[in-house]
Amino acid sequence: MKIIGEKINGTRPRVARAIQERDSDFIISLAQKQVDAGSTWLDVNAGTNPKEEPKDLLWLIEKIQSKVDAPICLDSANPKALEAALETVKRTPMINSISGEPYRLGKILPLVTKYDCPVIALAMNGKKIPETIEARIDIIQKIIQTTRDSGISDDQVYIDPLVMAISTNIQSGQIFLDTIRAIRKLYPDVHFTAGLSNISFGLPARSYINGAFLILALQAGLDCVILDPTDQEMKAALLSAELVLGYDRYSLNFIRAYRSGLFSKDNIEIKLK
Amino acid sequence: MKIIGEKINGTRPRVARAIQERDSDFIISLAQKQVDAGSTWLDVNAGTNPKEEPKDLLWLIEKIQSKVDAPICLDSANPKALEAALETVKRTPMINSISGEPYRLGKILPLVTKYDCPVIALAMNGKKIPETIEARIDIIQKIIQTTRDSGISDDQVYIDPLVMAISTNIQSGQIFLDTIRAIRKLYPDVHFTAGLSNISFGLPARSYINGAFLILALQAGLDCVILDPTDQEMKAALLSAELVLGYDRYSLNFIRAYRSGLFSKDNIEIKLK
Repeated sequence: MKIIGEKINGTRPRVARAIQERDSDFIISLAQKQVDAGSTWLDVNAGTNPKEEPKDLLWLIEKIQSKVDAPICLDSANPKALEAALETVKRTPMINSISGEPYRLGKILPLVTKYDCPVIALAMNGKKIPETIEARIDIIQKIIQTTRDSGISDDQVYIDPLVMAISTNIQSGQIFLDTIRAIRKLYPDVHFTAGLSNISFGLPARSYINGAFLILALQAGLDCVILDPTDQEMKAALLSAELVLGYDRYSLNFIRAYRSGLFSKDNIEIKLK
Repeated sequence: MKIIGEKINGTRPRVARAIQERDSDFIISLAQKQVDAGSTWLDVNAGTNPKEEPKDLLWLIEKIQSKVDAPICLDSANPKALEAALETVKRTPMINSISGEPYRLGKILPLVTKYDCPVIALAMNGKKIPETIEARIDIIQKIIQTTRDSGISDDQVYIDPLVMAISTNIQSGQIFLDTIRAIRKLYPDVHFTAGLSNISFGLPARSYINGAFLILALQAGLDCVILDPTDQEMKAALLSAELVLGYDRYSLNFIRAYRSGLFSKDNIEIKLK
């Protein structure tokens, strides 16, 4: 399972402050910690208003890549900000994201083609996540038709089936898992990614729900996850599931994590604070 | 997911002592705790030598059902002990177990028919667990042919696909899960049961591995599990997975467990001792 580290996001108050105060030490430290914890990509979302977003995004990228060697997942719906960022990044980035919305698709897809980079495709075409599996598949089929027409190979596309909260619909988890399985049958080469924590919105003991959902999503075919890689409980769930499913040769990753203290009581206490 | 509480087993030193000393308080308390923690059946295994087993098993059953109202899962390979126990139990028990071994099948199946009770069928026909999915399916097909010929309906049969340790074969988890899925396709009405903890034999941080495996097994179709129902971590994993899969209407079981403190730090500490 590949990991997109989610912590550099300007919608989080602490990160917003660091952006405003140009606190590069904080941002660099957040980047380094996530790489050390196993992130393949670092999501970077300036989270600021459209006018300021391009320059804030560029500042973030420049500071991160001055010290940390990891590809960036450019998290913006603003084609102008994305284009400036794509000119600046040192390593091939990921673009987060396109959707079925024609404007976004029309403006961002040419950038994907031009810079030949992986892209996240959301299974929605407006502001609202479709309730049914069928509606999500329908949107994804239209997106894939368009990416193929643009010369983008399926294995550059990371589909986000979108997670809704169980507290609003008890079937939310099953819909997500079944959407992955159904799309996998249609498109064997695409990847799947998602942020999972929305599943437990409004419920207590969220880390247990999120951990169980991660395990089930891995089994269903999720091969890339957007999360906080320093979250010990999610890491423990992921490594345990990879071990049980036979993905961890000689149990090396699991045993290495055990030796580093991942499963120890101290870390569990830290997580619960 | 139905639970068979596994703790009354004479191969465990503390239980063996209680049987030897006729310490009925200990046994009754062990039974009550497991029922309170959600067991549908109480597994009862005298664990003693064939000569003493019938009278020890009867003593256990009599003491348990003098105070605790729960059906018993009669855990013995000894037809004589089973027959005596079947005469004694107040509520319809489960028989644990038959296998593909002709002697065991020939001696125990008539008891299943006579007492019209559910039975666990192990996917093996000797002392060794077959390595492959195909070999296990082959044994199960022969067993089901025999149970059907004996007039036992498929929904009385609880198939145990058998769990081997990941430390001896990294594919053990996947083989177990795939065996369930393959047998489910052949026999839509059978149930599945298993003790899962063998998966993590020889590895550290076993509760994480066992919890992840339980979640994946539930997804694959396991509908009955043999475990220690007072194990907080397994219970937390089970309730989280049932919630995520949409089996927990209105999230009631999960929230009730949360309110009772299942997911709290104190319980986690207890579990780690």
